[in-house]
Amino acid sequence: MYLLSDAGQKAAWNSIKDLIHGKTLYFSHGFSIVFKDKTGVIPPNDCDVIMVAPKGSGTTVRSLFLEGRGINSSVAVFQDWSGKAEERAYATGIAIGSGYLYPTTFERETYSDLTGERGTLMGCIQGIFKAQFEVLISNGHTPSEAFNETVEEATQSLYPLIGKNGMDWMYNNCSITARRGALDWMDKFYSATKPVFEELYESVRNGTEDENTLIANSKPDYRENLSKELKELRESQLWQTAVTVRSLRPENQKVENN
Amino acid sequence: MYLLSDAGQKAAWNSIKDLIHGKTLYFSHGFSIVFKDKTGVIPPNDCDVIMVAPKGSGTTVRSLFLEGRGINSSVAVFQDWSGKAEERAYATGIAIGSGYLYPTTFERETYSDLTGERGTLMGCIQGIFKAQFEVLISNGHTPSEAFNETVEEATQSLYPLIGKNGMDWMYNNCSITARRGALDWMDKFYSATKPVFEELYESVRNGTEDENTLIANSKPDYRENLSKELKELRESQLWQTAVTVRSLRPENQKVENN
Repeated sequence: MYLLSDAGQKAAWNSIKDLIHGKTLYFSHGFSIVFKDKTGVIPPNDCDVIMVAPKGSGTTVRSLFLEGRGINSSVAVFQDWSGKAEERAYATGIAIGSGYLYPTTFERETYSDLTGERGTLMGCIQGIFKAQFEVLISNGHTPSEAFNETVEEATQSLYPLIGKNGMDWMYNNCSITARRGALDWMDKFYSATKPVFEELYESVRNGTEDENTLIANSKPDYRENLSKELKELRESQLWQTAVTVRSLRPENQKVENN
Repeated sequence: MYLLSDAGQKAAWNSIKDLIHGKTLYFSHGFSIVFKDKTGVIPPNDCDVIMVAPKGSGTTVRSLFLEGRGINSSVAVFQDWSGKAEERAYATGIAIGSGYLYPTTFERETYSDLTGERGTLMGCIQGIFKAQFEVLISNGHTPSEAFNETVEEATQSLYPLIGKNGMDWMYNNCSITARRGALDWMDKFYSATKPVFEELYESVRNGTEDENTLIANSKPDYRENLSKELKELRESQLWQTAVTVRSLRPENQKVENN
């Protein structure tokens, strides 16, 4: 199991590459193999190369494993030396507690994964939260109101319902005013973001994203620069308001008389 | 408590307006009062007019009440006849089980609420899901992979973590590749959507949204048209894939040997 970060896999490859003859090399992500010309991660011919890619954060992989319910993973074979690579991949997926497994390729996994994390999962969701929050604040709404209408209601009420029942159910089970408005505006947000997603996918496919990642993470001042960027995110009004709002949630209140 | 839909409040107002002299008129949303010139909901002078607006779907209001943890609500007084309107508003908020209460005005509640539901909560989130899903599909990814990377990982893994710990925590607790990419792309999605949020807020503020809602919901073929729009959403490849993926979740599997 080769479970270092993408940049770490590149850095450590020379130390491990002679150990895998006749064995199975396992990845949980396709990056190093797909961009092997840049990472130098080129496995010897006499080994199986497989992937099981869990669709969630490491934290979630672990917590769902402990709950016994597992997380979805995609499965791929890059090199089948033993003739049993596919079997080994599925067996590994079951062993790490995957909820269900669906086939992919190293390439498709990497492209969709890099797109998703830059898109709806992390990059895009921060972009839309920030945009709506700022528009409300600049129109005189309090941080508390702007945060509740932008993030808190989303993560605590609506997104879990969408996850459970789907968007069609959500649109069918909200107020008439919300439904009309959401139907009227979904296409405008779709049109505004579709070109960005197209640009994003192309940037992943043509290797710009992997290049940027490897360069940024190999710089000697990597940690310093990163900590500046994360500090800015952490200290933004949006996520400082979050700290206050979270502290007021019932589960985070100190119970004084129990 | 005047708990009909916004269009319903307009339609039923003449039947109830003579019953509220000397009493307290309660709203859970500011729409009818803010747009009173169009809705005709103009309360008599001799009554209190208050609002407690829960920040979540009715389903969530009820389920959190039953769990004893409550939901956040905003509170406002439009008319204080008794001198106790504010007190009554907060008492009502506590009685319906609000997690915590923050002050607003009827106007600010309505503007932020209409913006939020057309924005991050429902309209925008559907727009970004659709855009990313389509870009992946058009690049040869399977529906299962596209859905998992767009929606399933979001609602089942990342959004709950963002809700619990904030976006700064999420960016700090993901892979180095995801973090670099999300930091690089969040501003592009912010820039693409900020103008749409500005247009949206203006459309709420200048009454276009309430006009559209009242007109659409008063049409004789309202239900027919709506059911066509919802059918399209329900039958889209994105949300049909969701049905399949949801059925494969461990909690939705039939247990045969128990």
